Amino acid sequence: MNQLTAQEAWQELLGKDYVLTDETLRHDAQQATFGTKQKITTILRPSSCQEVQECLKIAHQFDIPLYPISCGKNWGYGSRVPVADGCALLDLSCLNRIVDFNEELAYVTVEPGVTQRQLYEFLQEQNSQLWMDATGSTPDSSLVGNTLERGFGHTPYGDRFANTCGLEVVLPTGEMIHTGMGRFSNAKAAPVYRWGVGAYLDGLFTQSNFGVVTKMTIWLMPAPEYFQSFYFSIESDRDLAGLINALRPLRMNGTIKSAVHIGNNYKVLSSIRQYPWSEAEGVTPLPAKTMEYFAKNWDFGAWNGSGGLYGTKKQVAESRRLIKKALKGKVRKLQFLDDGKIKLAEKIAKQYQQLTGTNLPEMLKLIKPVYGLMKGIPTETQLKSAYWRKKSPPPEVMDLDRDGCGLIWCAPVAPLEGKCADEINEIITDTVGKYGFEPLISFTLLTERCLSCIMTIAYDRYVPGEDEKAMNCYKDLLEQLTNSGYYPYRLGIHSMEMLTSAETSYQTLLDNIKKAIDSKGILAPGRYLKS
Amino acid sequence: MNQLTAQEAWQELLGKDYVLTDETLRHDAQQATFGTKQKITTILRPSSCQEVQECLKIAHQFDIPLYPISCGKNWGYGSRVPVADGCALLDLSCLNRIVDFNEELAYVTVEPGVTQRQLYEFLQEQNSQLWMDATGSTPDSSLVGNTLERGFGHTPYGDRFANTCGLEVVLPTGEMIHTGMGRFSNAKAAPVYRWGVGAYLDGLFTQSNFGVVTKMTIWLMPAPEYFQSFYFSIESDRDLAGLINALRPLRMNGTIKSAVHIGNNYKVLSSIRQYPWSEAEGVTPLPAKTMEYFAKNWDFGAWNGSGGLYGTKKQVAESRRLIKKALKGKVRKLQFLDDGKIKLAEKIAKQYQQLTGTNLPEMLKLIKPVYGLMKGIPTETQLKSAYWRKKSPPPEVMDLDRDGCGLIWCAPVAPLEGKCADEINEIITDTVGKYGFEPLISFTLLTERCLSCIMTIAYDRYVPGEDEKAMNCYKDLLEQLTNSGYYPYRLGIHSMEMLTSAETSYQTLLDNIKKAIDSKGILAPGRYLKS
Repeated sequence: MNQLTAQEAWQELLGKDYVLTDETLRHDAQQATFGTKQKITTILRPSSCQEVQECLKIAHQFDIPLYPISCGKNWGYGSRVPVADGCALLDLSCLNRIVDFNEELAYVTVEPGVTQRQLYEFLQEQNSQLWMDATGSTPDSSLVGNTLERGFGHTPYGDRFANTCGLEVVLPTGEMIHTGMGRFSNAKAAPVYRWGVGAYLDGLFTQSNFGVVTKMTIWLMPAPEYFQSFYFSIESDRDLAGLINALRPLRMNGTIKSAVHIGNNYKVLSSIRQYPWSEAEGVTPLPAKTMEYFAKNWDFGAWNGSGGLYGTKKQVAESRRLIKKALKGKVRKLQFLDDGKIKLAEKIAKQYQQLTGTNLPEMLKLIKPVYGLMKGIPTETQLKSAYWRKKSPPPEVMDLDRDGCGLIWCAPVAPLEGKCADEINEIITDTVGKYGFEPLISFTLLTERCLSCIMTIAYDRYVPGEDEKAMNCYKDLLEQLTNSGYYPYRLGIHSMEMLTSAETSYQTLLDNIKKAIDSKGILAPGRYLKS
Repeated sequence: MNQLTAQEAWQELLGKDYVLTDETLRHDAQQATFGTKQKITTILRPSSCQEVQECLKIAHQFDIPLYPISCGKNWGYGSRVPVADGCALLDLSCLNRIVDFNEELAYVTVEPGVTQRQLYEFLQEQNSQLWMDATGSTPDSSLVGNTLERGFGHTPYGDRFANTCGLEVVLPTGEMIHTGMGRFSNAKAAPVYRWGVGAYLDGLFTQSNFGVVTKMTIWLMPAPEYFQSFYFSIESDRDLAGLINALRPLRMNGTIKSAVHIGNNYKVLSSIRQYPWSEAEGVTPLPAKTMEYFAKNWDFGAWNGSGGLYGTKKQVAESRRLIKKALKGKVRKLQFLDDGKIKLAEKIAKQYQQLTGTNLPEMLKLIKPVYGLMKGIPTETQLKSAYWRKKSPPPEVMDLDRDGCGLIWCAPVAPLEGKCADEINEIITDTVGKYGFEPLISFTLLTERCLSCIMTIAYDRYVPGEDEKAMNCYKDLLEQLTNSGYYPYRLGIHSMEMLTSAETSYQTLLDNIKKAIDSKGILAPGRYLKS
């Protein structure tokens, strides 16, 4: 009864075309990259902050839980699926305006529907000398959504939340606020000064269910005079700790300004191609000798890293010198690449292949997107690895939810120390092996003193039993990791209640804040909170 | 009646020596650097987090407001004086342990009683290769206290709150929490990863009355291979905007990694000496011709800036080249200084003076502390400027509250744009002149895109009527500045209610959080909140 009346109120507010109850649409929105059971009652598609406010007021009035998504590309963590059953989906993808842009002060203000692709194209159109940060996720992912989940990208502005300010937030009751200096309507520093005056509240609205962010200012980096990327690899796990420890001082003192990503052989292979079913003779997990074959063929190591150098030509030259010095004797090879080299390689690729046999055209196809990411150019190519265990190739337009790609991410953070990388690697390798999955691992030098690991459980949802096996694997993995002190920086809808060892007083504080902000528990029940 | 019983409970908890009711002690603690009327009922001096918890529980039980201070050096903003009348003072200076230190990962974990001096000496003792951040305030100021007020220093880690994590907080009810990953007792990333998992709450406990922070992890910077500072000045206000705009790209692209400070002629003179009563023939504010005389004598400009360069010799050389290029034709002189040059100057100072007449020994005495601040060496010397309008010289041990130094800071933030600096300068100069004070102004390139102005109202509290005049001047100034869109990054106990134009919904949210955390309003009533 309530449901029906709320429905009518929403329809009146948004128009019928923006209140979707169609079975197929709801079914689609209920798919994630792992097994879920939650049902969605309605999909609401507001187009403005004011409509979001009204949607929430109606939800509040009729006591119906709402689950906000930005562009719904939270792949590996739950996609569009709400944590709790029976929510209406608040789809913010129609709020897709770039509402402010300042070239001199290097920022944009965007709504949650603005995608990586959209901002990238906008900056191109403006002939801007600014670079955005890009993640390896789809170009169609939301900047706001990813930042609120504290995702990270590949440029010096990769710790995305650290490079934002000035949120516009609709509270669960429908009230709207501006954080930071923005609460004063004429404050000039609103888009540039993060903390405001008085308590700094932005953090409250990340990884939480305390409000719906409808605007965010994102800082952009000035394009450097010169960019160069570097690549290295090591032969064996034995060299991993030494490598991490050698990189730490460079990250700490700012010689390396952006995240360095280091992927293991499995991670690299999954980015090169799908599971080699024929070479592995249909067996999973991937036999060691098949891996050896590919590693030799493609010339990658046990671990393979890349990073970017940003600055004037001289600044980059000095960084290069310091990196060479630090990694001497610690890596198998160390190579540097810039725009000029890439252009040259493209020019001679075919002849080079004819002369040497090296498949340079194919290598360039692999390298260029990763290279571009470090310059803030979003790319579709990284998504392909989600089709790792699928039997058919990725389609032109990839949709992991639709295509039954099994994908669960487990992302523990650790101090930037070699021994931590070793320990995490060991735990993951031991654990996922038991479940028949490959340890698809990458380490990211996320900040000056923090290492983030991304472990991908990749499987084919079409294979019966795999959903369950993958989820059990995740649970086991999370337990092993947290028992050893490695907690994830982010949770999926399936794991919101898995971190049971938190102190009670903290949980009580969160609950009290939730009650104060959302007494009825309307907004995204269960998201990073039991209530 | 209640009061007495609470008193007894506190005495039982802390011992009589740590519950102070002595008239003189209370009187001393009621002094600030401007006029105040608030009375303090008792001074509590707990020595541990647990004692803080118990103090709060007793306060809660007996409904007595508590006002926490760290080391009580919040000079210019209210010193130890509570915002509200009738509070017991919760003096945390006995919680003065450095509880954790990690050279490799570059952090310390400290209690609120740990001072700048204490940490500096600790690092020296450890032969640490790490530098702390230092502010120009007294070496006896609290690191935690200043960071919670979002103070800033002179090194690349100058935006202090941005370089901390892992708070231990006692909530008003006496419950204790750990923020970030610290809520999991075994989390290894607790001192290195800021955001934790779930809502990021640290910001809640800055500039607020939501909790008492009893521990904080502070990140330290690795000492660079080479440090060089640079100094420049401009002739006239007309050149200020151009200077700011020329510096912005260097700050934005990381060539300049730390705050650049630019002080006007008044600011410089006040750091060189006290008010030149005889030269000014007893007249205030300072006559233009007296200023001209000193500017010529000491060779400073209308605006005078300094900044630090950190890196390898080659990195610094490149920064130097870029700064020279950017400031060419925009500044009167640009000089660079390093440890070697300072040593040399010290060696030849006296002969140089005899030969040239330039008072090099005196200049070195002025320059060295500022130079040291950029290397994280705290200094007492900057405090002297608080005695600007006093008739007697600063004593050996300076205590601004005791010595009747009139000092009110007004610190608006702005986008890092020349035109904003011009506008702020104009507003301040016009306004403070009316009240007979000098415009003691400095601008700080606080972050990549943000400018902070510090305006000092300095006066002699012993001169009848000056307290009132200074406060009226502050009010007028704040009104002019906020009307033009420039809001302060921080408030004093006298100005907590002066920002009246904030949106109501935001204020309501703050009030609701306060109620949820501190239903009785026990903790620091009125601090950054009406309740």
